[in-house]
Amino acid sequence: MLDKVIEIGLLIDFYGELLTEKQQKALKLYYYQDLSLSEIGERLEISRQGVYDHLHRGEDILRDYERKMALISKYQFFKNEIEEMDEYIKGKSIDLTIKNELSKRIERIKKRL
Amino acid sequence: MLDKVIEIGLLIDFYGELLTEKQQKALKLYYYQDLSLSEIGERLEISRQGVYDHLHRGEDILRDYERKMALISKYQFFKNEIEEMDEYIKGKSIDLTIKNELSKRIERIKKRL
Repeated sequence: MLDKVIEIGLLIDFYGELLTEKQQKALKLYYYQDLSLSEIGERLEISRQGVYDHLHRGEDILRDYERKMALISKYQFFKNEIEEMDEYIKGKSIDLTIKNELSKRIERIKKRL
Repeated sequence: MLDKVIEIGLLIDFYGELLTEKQQKALKLYYYQDLSLSEIGERLEISRQGVYDHLHRGEDILRDYERKMALISKYQFFKNEIEEMDEYIKGKSIDLTIKNELSKRIERIKKRL
């Protein structure tokens, strides 16, 4: 289950805006807040079956976007490259002014990743 | 017109996969190959008005994705940061082995941008 929570969490971060409001809410209450289908149904004022449908439809749509756009795999590539470059620079003997400037630039990139 | 060609070209690069096949084809023939509506109509075997509709609907959808996801503005931020870091490193006096390794890492990132 943890793997699925992480997978869906990433998909929501990247593509959540492309879902309907109900789909977004159902997925977040289910995966982020660990509520049951009945609890989510009460909050959203829809049936338990309605919640189930929003969850399944929402997940399908999110996976379909990733299949077409592959943003998460691109993101993970950049994140790894930037983190490895950060480690590399920190471990090398470089003039301190240059090292600080490079670290500052890398931090700026990391913040937007 | 050139600005619009560049704008739509970027939008197609990022979100083109999310359009229907006809919308993609119409946009590419119009903006990349500079064909007229009638010429595109002949190729796609649809009316001139049909081409017009695919183009307008396609552009609206692409802009809507960018409004929701802002991938192009994020991309431009990373591209600038990486290019500036590249220039910074090239202009500084750093041990050659370290400089080459950093350049290699930056090239790897640039290739995937």
